[in-house]
Amino acid sequence: MLAEIITIGDEILIGQIVDTNSAWMARQLNLIGIKVKQVSSVSDDADHIVNALTLAQERAKIILITGGLGPTKDDITKITLARYFNMELKRDQETLDHIKGIFDRLNRPMIEANMKQAYVPDGCIVIKNKNGTAPCMWFEHNGTVIVSMPGVPFEMMYLMEEEILPRLKDSFKLPAIFHKTILTAGIGESFLAAEIESIEDGLPEHIKLAYLPKLGQVRLRLSGTGADELTLKNEVELWARQIVDRIGKYVVVEDDIPLEKALLDIMDKKKLTLSVAESCTGGYIASMITQHSGCSSVFLGGAVVYSNQLKQSILGVKEETLSAYGAVSEETVKEMAVASVKQFKTDYAIAVTGIAGPDGGTTDKPVGTVWIALAGREKVTAKKFSFGGKRIQNIERSAIAALTMILNELNRYEV
Amino acid sequence: MLAEIITIGDEILIGQIVDTNSAWMARQLNLIGIKVKQVSSVSDDADHIVNALTLAQERAKIILITGGLGPTKDDITKITLARYFNMELKRDQETLDHIKGIFDRLNRPMIEANMKQAYVPDGCIVIKNKNGTAPCMWFEHNGTVIVSMPGVPFEMMYLMEEEILPRLKDSFKLPAIFHKTILTAGIGESFLAAEIESIEDGLPEHIKLAYLPKLGQVRLRLSGTGADELTLKNEVELWARQIVDRIGKYVVVEDDIPLEKALLDIMDKKKLTLSVAESCTGGYIASMITQHSGCSSVFLGGAVVYSNQLKQSILGVKEETLSAYGAVSEETVKEMAVASVKQFKTDYAIAVTGIAGPDGGTTDKPVGTVWIALAGREKVTAKKFSFGGKRIQNIERSAIAALTMILNELNRYEV
Repeated sequence: MLAEIITIGDEILIGQIVDTNSAWMARQLNLIGIKVKQVSSVSDDADHIVNALTLAQERAKIILITGGLGPTKDDITKITLARYFNMELKRDQETLDHIKGIFDRLNRPMIEANMKQAYVPDGCIVIKNKNGTAPCMWFEHNGTVIVSMPGVPFEMMYLMEEEILPRLKDSFKLPAIFHKTILTAGIGESFLAAEIESIEDGLPEHIKLAYLPKLGQVRLRLSGTGADELTLKNEVELWARQIVDRIGKYVVVEDDIPLEKALLDIMDKKKLTLSVAESCTGGYIASMITQHSGCSSVFLGGAVVYSNQLKQSILGVKEETLSAYGAVSEETVKEMAVASVKQFKTDYAIAVTGIAGPDGGTTDKPVGTVWIALAGREKVTAKKFSFGGKRIQNIERSAIAALTMILNELNRYEV
Repeated sequence: MLAEIITIGDEILIGQIVDTNSAWMARQLNLIGIKVKQVSSVSDDADHIVNALTLAQERAKIILITGGLGPTKDDITKITLARYFNMELKRDQETLDHIKGIFDRLNRPMIEANMKQAYVPDGCIVIKNKNGTAPCMWFEHNGTVIVSMPGVPFEMMYLMEEEILPRLKDSFKLPAIFHKTILTAGIGESFLAAEIESIEDGLPEHIKLAYLPKLGQVRLRLSGTGADELTLKNEVELWARQIVDRIGKYVVVEDDIPLEKALLDIMDKKKLTLSVAESCTGGYIASMITQHSGCSSVFLGGAVVYSNQLKQSILGVKEETLSAYGAVSEETVKEMAVASVKQFKTDYAIAVTGIAGPDGGTTDKPVGTVWIALAGREKVTAKKFSFGGKRIQNIERSAIAALTMILNELNRYEV
C-alpha cells in the first residue's frame, strides 16, 4: 500500500521552518505497513496544489495533506480541495460550535476569518480537531483516500494517532504487522551486521530486519507481516531473542525509545539516582534527560561548570589537579564525577570535560578530545574519546557516549 | 528565478531522518533572490528520480539534488543522472586522488565501493567535495542547471556556500539583493505589524518586509532588489532605521542571529558574565548558550537543580521558603537567582522554576506556570508566566522568556 505526503505552505519553501511533520507521519505509516512513495512540499498556490495532488493520485492510494488551513491563509487548501473534488463549501455546524467554544474559553472575540474555518467542502467527512480551530477533512475519490490536516505538529499528531491511522487500517484492510525494536549502543552498524549475519540470513521472507543507525546507537527493527497477529508476534519475538542472545552486551533495551529514556527507565526500576557534571556538553545531557516527564525520580540535577573557577568552587576540583593535568584530563574528570556523587547525593554521576571546538585545540589535545567519567558511590572510571572537529557533533557524541557508559555499567550489574 | 529541491533517499521516506537540508538550502537560495517552487523527497529508485527530475525541469531553471551518493547505495543517483543526460560514466582522476588521500589520512583500506565514487557522468562539471568522498556534480541541460550534492548536511552546506551559490549568482546574473534582519522579542507578530503599519505602507515596490515569527521572537526582514548594491544597501538601512526608531524597545539586535547569540555578543561587549540556575528548563538554557563557540567569555556555568534538595544544598534556597511558598514561587526563584550570582560569581544570573508538565499541576499552579528571575549584583526581579500544557514547548518558551528578560534589562542600561 503506497501513500504520499503533500505539505502546503510557503514557510517550508522559504526555509523558515523545517518540515518535521513528514518524517513523523512517514514513520507512523510505515509502522502499519504503508510505504511513503513521495513527500512534496508545495506553495500556497491553487494550481500548484492541484498539480501535486493529481500526480500523487497517479502513484498512491493514500494522500495525506498538511498545512494551508490557517485563518490567515485565505483557506487556500480548502478552496482548492473543493475545486479539485468539485464540491461546494458549506458551513459545518459542529465545527462552528467547536470553534466558538475555543474562543469562549480563551475569552477572545471571534473574527470573520475564524468563522470561515467552519466551512468545509460538501461531501467530505469532517473529523474534529480537538486541539485547534481548523477541521480535518477526509475525502474518498476514485479509490483513493485524501486527508487534509492542519500543519501545527501537535494538532496533526493527535489527529493521526486518534483518527487517521485507525481509519486507514480499517479502510484498506491492511495485513497484520508486528515490529520489534532492539536499541543497541557502542557498536557500529557494519560490526553489528557481521555479528548477526547468520541470523539475518535465516530470516523468513515475511520478516525483515532494518538497521537504523543514529549517533553512536543502532536500532535493529524486525518487522513481520502476516495474517494472524498473535502468531506473528510470537515468531518475531523468537527471532529477536536470538539476536539479543548473540549481541546482548550491546543491547540497551528491547524497545523503540530514546537512549536517555531507556536509562531513566532502568534506573527508576533499580531505584537509583543520577546527577551530572558537565563542562563541554554545557547542559546538553541534563537537558536531554529532563525533556522526559517523570525524570525527577531518577535525575536530581547537576552542575554546568564551564569555567575552571566553577570546577573548583562548585565541585571542589583541586587547583593542583587543574594546573598539573589541565581541565581536559582523566584526573579532572574523575574528580568532577566523584564530587558530583558526593555533593548532589546521588548513586551515580556522569562527568564530561573536553574540547568541543572549533577553537581551543592543541597538538596534545586536539579539538574533539573528550574525557568522560562515571562515578558510583564507591568507584570511578574514566574514558577518553577522540571525536571530530565539529562543535555540535562533539557535544552530541559526548552525551551519547556518556549515556552509553552508564548503561553498560548498569547492564553489567544485571549479569 | 525559480528553483526546486529534490532529496533522494529512503531514509526520509521511512521517517528515519528529518530533512533539515531543504529548509537550509531554501533559506540560502532566498537570500540571493531565488525562490523555491517545490521540494520533493523521492525514493532510491531510478524511474522515480527521472520522473521527479522531468517534472521539476518543467517548473524551474535550477534543480538542486541531495543524497543517494553514498558508496553503499549502488550510486543510484549518479547512474540515473548519467542515463537522464545520456552520458557515460568515466573515472575522474582528481576525485580518485582526493578519495585516496582521505583513506590514506584515516589509515583505512579502500574498498571497491569507494573506488566507484570516483566515477562521474562524462559531461558534468565535477566540483570537489573537500569534506567527503562523494563528488558534487554540476550539469547544464536545456538552459537548466542541475546540481547533485551529497546529503550529509555539513558536506552539502560547505559545497553550497563555497561553490554552488556563487556559481548560481554568476550563471543567472541575478539582480543585486540586500537583506537586513531586525530581531525582536517580547512582542507578538500582529502587535508589531500594527506598530509599524504606516512605515510598511510607505515601502517602495522593490523593498519587501517579511515577518518571521518563532517562539516569542519575531524577525523582521527587509529585502531590497535592485541594480546597484551600494544604493540598495543605503536605502534598506534607512528603512530599517525608521523601524528600529519606532519599535526600539523590542529590538534585540539588527542581525539575523539566534537570540542567545545576540545576548552573548552584547554581554561580551559589555564584559559582563552570566550564570544560570535551572529547575524546569533542566539545562536547556545552558545548552542553548554553550552550543555557541566562544561563549566561555560570558557564560561561566550554572546549576541544574531539579530536586528541592539540590535547590537547598547547591544554591542555598532556604527550607522555609520552599515549604512556605513552594518550589514554583516568586520567593524561591528570586533566591535561586541571587544565590547563582553570588556562588558562581557572575554579574547576572537567570533562574527558572516551573511546572513543565504534563503532570505536577495543581489548581493554583497549573501545568505551564513558570517563574523566572533575573538577578544582578544588586537587584533581583521576577516574573510569572503561564504557558500551555506541552512539556517541551514550556521548556522552550521559558528559555526564550528568560533570555528576553535579561536582554530587556541590558538594553535598558543602554538608554
